[in-house]
Amino acid sequence: MSFVFPQKILFKHCDPAGIVFFPRYFEMINDCVETFFDEVLGLPFEELLRHGGVPTAEISTRFTAPSRHGDKLAFILDCTKLGRTSLGLEIVATCKGETRFISNSTLVYVNREGRPTPWPEHVATTLQKIVKGGE
Amino acid sequence: MSFVFPQKILFKHCDPAGIVFFPRYFEMINDCVETFFDEVLGLPFEELLRHGGVPTAEISTRFTAPSRHGDKLAFILDCTKLGRTSLGLEIVATCKGETRFISNSTLVYVNREGRPTPWPEHVATTLQKIVKGGE
Amino acid sequence: MSFVFPQKILFKHCDPAGIVFFPRYFEMINDCVETFFDEVLGLPFEELLRHGGVPTAEISTRFTAPSRHGDKLAFILDCTKLGRTSLGLEIVATCKGETRFISNSTLVYVNREGRPTPWPEHVATTLQKIVKGGE
Amino acid sequence: MSFVFPQKILFKHCDPAGIVFFPRYFEMINDCVETFFDEVLGLPFEELLRHGGVPTAEISTRFTAPSRHGDKLAFILDCTKLGRTSLGLEIVATCKGETRFISNSTLVYVNREGRPTPWPEHVATTLQKIVKGGE
Repeated sequence: MSFVFPQKILFKHCDPAGIVFFPRYFEMINDCVETFFDEVLGLPFEELLRHGGVPTAEISTRFTAPSRHGDKLAFILDCTKLGRTSLGLEIVATCKGETRFISNSTLVYVNREGRPTPWPEHVATTLQKIVKGGE
Repeated sequence: MSFVFPQKILFKHCDPAGIVFFPRYFEMINDCVETFFDEVLGLPFEELLRHGGVPTAEISTRFTAPSRHGDKLAFILDCTKLGRTSLGLEIVATCKGETRFISNSTLVYVNREGRPTPWPEHVATTLQKIVKGGE
Repeated sequence: MSFVFPQKILFKHCDPAGIVFFPRYFEMINDCVETFFDEVLGLPFEELLRHGGVPTAEISTRFTAPSRHGDKLAFILDCTKLGRTSLGLEIVATCKGETRFISNSTLVYVNREGRPTPWPEHVATTLQKIVKGGE
Repeated sequence: MSFVFPQKILFKHCDPAGIVFFPRYFEMINDCVETFFDEVLGLPFEELLRHGGVPTAEISTRFTAPSRHGDKLAFILDCTKLGRTSLGLEIVATCKGETRFISNSTLVYVNREGRPTPWPEHVATTLQKIVKGGE
């Protein structure tokens, strides 16, 4: 039930050492999460933003091997924990069987005032089905 | 013995919700670390890059309050752990007494082939003096 | 004979006014050119970089209407002028029939020392066929 | 009467060829303009944004020499043309007497609906004094 997001490493992502500049990984992670919300949850960020948002409350990432320009990565996203107003995510990036990074984060669903708010019912229903190990 | 890096939140850092887009924080963190290496360790990244680099091996960040356009933050950097080839850092960002995020990371000193390498002696000597709690 | 590059406007591209932050357009333009070199000229940037590069020597852009989060743009790239060591490009970005920007640029093919160098013969042959109005 | 903005080239600005990735120059140009509005016109972007903005309508840039990591540039900003709702700017970036780029742009002062609006009187007064050659 993982969501897979393909990500080619482009010129713009790389630093003078010829590998991905690590803050660029977080942009890619954000793109991956944005696409997951759009395609899996039916909640495009451009609509979601009108009612609030899903800021990242925390994120921990371990970089296990460098990625180079031209590498074709797969970002494998799993929902690891569903809270009333939050969501735990794990994203593992791989290339040809090699893990490039493992990232765990917690998103919070907030209203326009930035206050944590329960997930809309249809979103919670979808998330319950895909959260790893059930809930 | 903390290193303090002032960081004003600019237009480019902010997202449609009017707060810092979190991947931008990691660019700021990288700027902070680059300035610390230059001013405190006497090891500007532009020289260091000729012999290797200091890739981030892992980084964990907790965002405790949003930052807005115009906010004047202080990034307070402390060395928390010195290894033979690695360095633990803690960066706390504050604004008017409010903590915005706390970030812990581990950098590794590598040679041009990307292999972990002992810190140059004069760098190790400086780091030993400033690492929190001594070593 | 235009090359069309689809580009959805994502969260990361937008500023506090809710529209694309204009430097982000130049990243998108770079992605578009990188993809054109890969798919049309058979010259992926990751290979090209080993022998030199194609720095942008000049670029002029007129922004005619703002783009918002969620907009699905088409970047329409045409080769407007072929020189011995250079290439003129026009990129027009549109969304639902509305032009968002028009950009004209000149790239230069350089060797590892940064000196302008004639295009490889097979690249020149392809470019001659697609340059607007012939050459 | 030029406004001078110092800009060191940092790790984050550079590409695998070891020189500035050109879209990063446009972020620096935006920072320079933001600082000019704050320090010279007394109109910080964070306040200006509440009433509208100053989107870039067009920008033309000629890159005359590459910039490398560690280079200390000066961005020299001049107001070249003052319109009722617009402002022409020229920014020249130099390093040790060498010109790195010359950029000409037109900004438009808009209200919250994005419509061009006359400059506030005190801003117009300041701009009239500093626009090159008078107006």
